Amino acid sequence: MGVPQPARAGDQDRQPVVGMVGGGQLARMTAQAAIGLGIEFRVLADTAADSAAQVSAHTQTGDYHRADDLLAFGAGCDVVTFDHEHVPGEHLAALEAVTAVRPGGPALRFAQDKAAMRDRLSALRSLRALGAACPRYRPVSNPDEVASFAAQGEGWPVVLKATSGGYDGKGVWICENESSAADVIAHGIGLLVEEYVAFDRELAVLVARSPKGQGAAYPVVQTVQEDGICREVIAPAPDLDPSVAMRAQQLGLTIAAELDVTGLLAVELFAVGDELIINELAMRPHNCGHWTIDGAITSQFEQHLRAVLDLPLGAPAPTSATAVMVNVLGGEPDLYSRLIHVMAADPGVKVHLYGKAVRPGRKVGHVTVAGEDVAALRDRAWRTANYLSHGTED
Amino acid sequence: MGVPQPARAGDQDRQPVVGMVGGGQLARMTAQAAIGLGIEFRVLADTAADSAAQVSAHTQTGDYHRADDLLAFGAGCDVVTFDHEHVPGEHLAALEAVTAVRPGGPALRFAQDKAAMRDRLSALRSLRALGAACPRYRPVSNPDEVASFAAQGEGWPVVLKATSGGYDGKGVWICENESSAADVIAHGIGLLVEEYVAFDRELAVLVARSPKGQGAAYPVVQTVQEDGICREVIAPAPDLDPSVAMRAQQLGLTIAAELDVTGLLAVELFAVGDELIINELAMRPHNCGHWTIDGAITSQFEQHLRAVLDLPLGAPAPTSATAVMVNVLGGEPDLYSRLIHVMAADPGVKVHLYGKAVRPGRKVGHVTVAGEDVAALRDRAWRTANYLSHGTED
Repeated sequence: MGVPQPARAGDQDRQPVVGMVGGGQLARMTAQAAIGLGIEFRVLADTAADSAAQVSAHTQTGDYHRADDLLAFGAGCDVVTFDHEHVPGEHLAALEAVTAVRPGGPALRFAQDKAAMRDRLSALRSLRALGAACPRYRPVSNPDEVASFAAQGEGWPVVLKATSGGYDGKGVWICENESSAADVIAHGIGLLVEEYVAFDRELAVLVARSPKGQGAAYPVVQTVQEDGICREVIAPAPDLDPSVAMRAQQLGLTIAAELDVTGLLAVELFAVGDELIINELAMRPHNCGHWTIDGAITSQFEQHLRAVLDLPLGAPAPTSATAVMVNVLGGEPDLYSRLIHVMAADPGVKVHLYGKAVRPGRKVGHVTVAGEDVAALRDRAWRTANYLSHGTED
Repeated sequence: MGVPQPARAGDQDRQPVVGMVGGGQLARMTAQAAIGLGIEFRVLADTAADSAAQVSAHTQTGDYHRADDLLAFGAGCDVVTFDHEHVPGEHLAALEAVTAVRPGGPALRFAQDKAAMRDRLSALRSLRALGAACPRYRPVSNPDEVASFAAQGEGWPVVLKATSGGYDGKGVWICENESSAADVIAHGIGLLVEEYVAFDRELAVLVARSPKGQGAAYPVVQTVQEDGICREVIAPAPDLDPSVAMRAQQLGLTIAAELDVTGLLAVELFAVGDELIINELAMRPHNCGHWTIDGAITSQFEQHLRAVLDLPLGAPAPTSATAVMVNVLGGEPDLYSRLIHVMAADPGVKVHLYGKAVRPGRKVGHVTVAGEDVAALRDRAWRTANYLSHGTED
């Protein structure tokens, strides 16, 4: 399937319509990127107050759990894509019968179901040639299975992961013993146990792939997560062996091709020496790529749109030696009132606010600083993000 | 007046509301910049099909010639600003009684009335110290006055300019003789005659000024106009003597302060040797600053919002050695269909489409290429703009 054709006849100047399911900040920033491409961008949001709904001229409110809402939304779009991976698989199949869906359901399944993802990636010999592997894993349904998995490997701790979704906003638990594993299992959700990887650092690679099969890889970044939330991204990852960086990019492009991903694919990695351990996959714009808005020729949001529209991909090259992105987490209310301080303190920092109500720990924005010296850029980005969050620079 | 306060009480997390009168591409690109600032951006557009209305979540349709429409729009905004300078002066005064208007009516008058602008600037001694001057000029109402103006100076040609507005989409006429001047005067509009300036090249300086009085100047650019339409901007202007560049920036900042401009001020200049002749003023985002979206730390659209919100201004520094912007003029229909070619041909070019129906010669988008070598960047930008316009690279 090539560039989507206008759905209405007789309207030669009509632009294609891209619909994104989900109204979060990823859809908000994609809406921003869509403006320059001259396309019509629609959002299916839960409410009109959602982050993306606030800024999109074409918002439909609806429930992505309901096939009717999804199909009504999809019927008006040339392509449907996603701000999250929570649309049920059977609805994706129904949607694919009425419009182009990118990534498609069979690919998206591997971002929805961690057991399926592990099974699929573990079977890919091409990953081993790239010095990449999955952690040891197995599906579990009782504490004995977890204990036996621990005993067969390095012992405790082990990591329990919800196969899909999660419980109370969490999907990953580090368990130090059988008793804490039993507490997680008591929630009654599908679970996977994985070995705990004592990583040197976390990396991420972001690639795009179009339906025609064109691929593009952004520079490999270093990420820092705290309590399962991304806090900082440094692009490119400092002091990364160029051969490891290249292997990581090949890994991203290989997985995208093998899984027939269209749009963006983010691969979160643990670096252990020169080995790359695959942690998670996401098939959408991703927090590890927010720096590209201010630090790359083509932002990840424009790139995702180009990919799902089957347009040629844009240059993923950085526009400065380094960029540092730090997320702004919810702290004090009235975020906007603190803009005046950070803008006066650092006229070169780029602030991105998401229009979300402030709740403690929630991602409500991010800041990016681009330049040369990593330490200085980190200092500026953290001061800004901290002040925006809670009114002090540390 | 500082940062606008929330108009509704009891809503601590509310962002300020900026309203822009006019729904053209300047409002469209300002809407794009507003997304990152987390503010609410509203547009008063003629129709829901206007360039900005297509992408703005908060469009009101109305007629800016009608005080009722303007006041209803302004009542919901913390600050009102403009995509054009056509709002009648008496309506501006009425609007200022209900909300903050930036730039204010007294400043905007100098962008609306060329006779008032010439009188005001000619009286500014500070401009002479900067090696800047206005062309010789006088208001005229009959062909004899034009002939006498020509005879008193360098002779023909002379330039006739509509004092405000214009006739049939035109506001500037180069007249070679009294007979062609008589044809223009026959339209019955207010006119100014100016000496014809045989310039070496055209330059423009873009500055921002906030209500607090903070100023920021972008690098001086070289512009090329054809038939009164901006075609190409090179930032910074190649081979410009640094002392001339500094004088031009000081000129912009001085005029902004003297005229009490809030928001952006663009000053179009003729360069004659080292002398700077002031051609036109605009108090809004301007075509000479489109390159800043892809080539400066702070885009002119974000800068305008920061200035009218009285937020500290952003860094105007360029992010690359050179950026070249070329406008895409209307040529063949179905502009979008040619994106695939230009994106494949040059993955590093930034395309901005305005969602406007294609009409011959109309500005329907622009392209920017940033990098090092001016000649190579110009070549890439023109190939892209030409192909988008009419399907060939020249």
